[in-house]
Amino acid sequence: MTTGTTGLFPADLALTDPVAVAQLLIRQPSVSPDPGESQQLLGAMLEQLGFEVTHLPFGEGAERTPNFFARLGTGGPHICYAGHTDVVPAGNAADWTHPPFAADIVDGVLYGRGACDMKGGIAACVAAIARRVQAGKGEGSISLLITGDEEGPATYGTQKVLEWMAVHGQIPDYCLVGEPTNPQTLGEMVKVGRRGSLNALITVEGTQGHVAYPHRADNPVHRLLAVLDALLATPLDHGSEYFEPSSLQVTSLDVGNTATNLIPARAQARLNIRFNDLHTGAALKGWIQTVCRLYAPKSRVDVSISGESFFAPPGKEMAVLQQAIKSVTGLDPKLDTGGGTSDARFIARYCPVAEFGLVGASIHKVDEHAAVADMEKLTRIYEAFLKGVGV
Amino acid sequence: MTTGTTGLFPADLALTDPVAVAQLLIRQPSVSPDPGESQQLLGAMLEQLGFEVTHLPFGEGAERTPNFFARLGTGGPHICYAGHTDVVPAGNAADWTHPPFAADIVDGVLYGRGACDMKGGIAACVAAIARRVQAGKGEGSISLLITGDEEGPATYGTQKVLEWMAVHGQIPDYCLVGEPTNPQTLGEMVKVGRRGSLNALITVEGTQGHVAYPHRADNPVHRLLAVLDALLATPLDHGSEYFEPSSLQVTSLDVGNTATNLIPARAQARLNIRFNDLHTGAALKGWIQTVCRLYAPKSRVDVSISGESFFAPPGKEMAVLQQAIKSVTGLDPKLDTGGGTSDARFIARYCPVAEFGLVGASIHKVDEHAAVADMEKLTRIYEAFLKGVGV
Repeated sequence: MTTGTTGLFPADLALTDPVAVAQLLIRQPSVSPDPGESQQLLGAMLEQLGFEVTHLPFGEGAERTPNFFARLGTGGPHICYAGHTDVVPAGNAADWTHPPFAADIVDGVLYGRGACDMKGGIAACVAAIARRVQAGKGEGSISLLITGDEEGPATYGTQKVLEWMAVHGQIPDYCLVGEPTNPQTLGEMVKVGRRGSLNALITVEGTQGHVAYPHRADNPVHRLLAVLDALLATPLDHGSEYFEPSSLQVTSLDVGNTATNLIPARAQARLNIRFNDLHTGAALKGWIQTVCRLYAPKSRVDVSISGESFFAPPGKEMAVLQQAIKSVTGLDPKLDTGGGTSDARFIARYCPVAEFGLVGASIHKVDEHAAVADMEKLTRIYEAFLKGVGV
Repeated sequence: MTTGTTGLFPADLALTDPVAVAQLLIRQPSVSPDPGESQQLLGAMLEQLGFEVTHLPFGEGAERTPNFFARLGTGGPHICYAGHTDVVPAGNAADWTHPPFAADIVDGVLYGRGACDMKGGIAACVAAIARRVQAGKGEGSISLLITGDEEGPATYGTQKVLEWMAVHGQIPDYCLVGEPTNPQTLGEMVKVGRRGSLNALITVEGTQGHVAYPHRADNPVHRLLAVLDALLATPLDHGSEYFEPSSLQVTSLDVGNTATNLIPARAQARLNIRFNDLHTGAALKGWIQTVCRLYAPKSRVDVSISGESFFAPPGKEMAVLQQAIKSVTGLDPKLDTGGGTSDARFIARYCPVAEFGLVGASIHKVDEHAAVADMEKLTRIYEAFLKGVGV
């Protein structure tokens, strides 16, 4: 291997070493949206391994988001690994024990922003592929879907790349997302779906008046309370086979009336629903609108659906992944659908998807870190998975 | 009559003329707390009529409130007339058709801040007394309890004067408050009580967290909604003989959380209860505290009771007042307890009290006004009342 043509990484870099790859990636600060340098670096590494890399920036101006699609081989099955190079801000760097972009290794732990979310995961994937290439890979092909905006609005990221992949006949047979899915210990959890998320802002208009004459006013607070009481009265469901019960949380109430003798003219509430596969965002939106019409005819509901729920029924690839995890860690991973959202919600519209990566306990915090031993284990899991599915 | 010694009003002022007296009072701008000039003027007029005037300023610095107690005669019964010289601000004087402190008379209407609330009422009282003095008054005595802060916090006003009166053996047998009690037509309404008023600020503490993990958080908004639902579930009462039903109005909800994925740490609500004679402020406070303990153990309730409800059972003085009103206006006044609070709530602790004054439709508005004909009628009503009770 030589890298004389790119100069983006040392000629003697062993791409089979996940820690060395992760260190190079972490040392490229790439707060959302990733300005692109880390993607140039990652793309060059993949080209080194024989990938064909297509850079796919989308969006204009401040929204410009670097992304790329890279594929090695053309045979089946086509397995895609999806991830992001952008990271959340480091916050106050002085709060870190180890500089956030130095990628120091201390006592067997790699420190840095993105160490586990998710440059460390990407590095394990690169190393796994490098080892498969060295060993003589199978007939199957492997691709990487990399975005520079997963932590931000994600408007010009994975969704746009998937559209491009669909148009260019690049939709894979199976996708593995490298998000850090393990709460505490590598091997304990695979995500096979996620709940959907819906935000609503309810604005109730009333008629202002003096508290001494409530019959001359129409108190919007009381109408809003009736709406919220109706929305909270009955659980949305009691959970389903792979999902926790859906949850409605009222996150804010806003009137801002400091006059004690005044019935206000308007009242607002904000709520979020994390919903499982028993619901759709559209049906929940309709339900909220109906309740508002019933209890507060003069109201407005602004709903935004951040993502529908999705669930990928475990199939043959999952069996291979579970076996790979067990062989390396000794653990039987739980198939889970809890927690927040990820770009897997977009991918699920196109093909089966699962998520498995490092331990996520330190993500978005100061001193984000990954154990060097975990990075080697994850590399061996990815390697065993690829080999098992024929890549 | 001469006024050479005071110089505060023209030597030829006829104190029997309520309109002339009202004009002089209105031309002394006396926004709460009254700086005192209007009280010096009113006190001088009363001294002219033979009253002994005791100026009783209470409070220090910015809170200093001028008040006075004046009494004519020592015999029984002792009838007290209570009122205030302070007025609410004029707002933007340019919005007025007639300057707020000019006391212009146009087409039989006197315009100015305080015309009906309540310098006009005080002027009718002064004129009625002057007429009784001219006619040779009875054995009974008459006093005036005048405060300079009824429209403001009222902390150093009527309450403090009443304490002074109690200490000095000046508690009357009956008190008439000159607030504008008639909604549209002079003679239609006497107030014989008022509802009490209670304000509460409920603060519920929770545990902040991500909406995706509600079991790790404790949503204070949901607890607050349960508290308010319980408080609003059942009507406080269905009214009593002289009172409308009590009313609980939630006047504000405040969380101020704009992060859609965050369960907030704290939620607040403000409410006001206008309560009738079936309740006490202390009992309502206890009820709110109990409901909060039940549905939101980590909550705090700050309650302030602005006034207890009170009701003065109609007695012989009321019969005289009703007869005086009917003889002048031809109307049978309704005995009412609705509307906002007044200083009568303080007086009711010491002696029977009723309220009767001008028409209140224009109070606290631009172009506040009183009909000259109403001022003459009110003077004759007060005069007939005083004569009827033996003053």
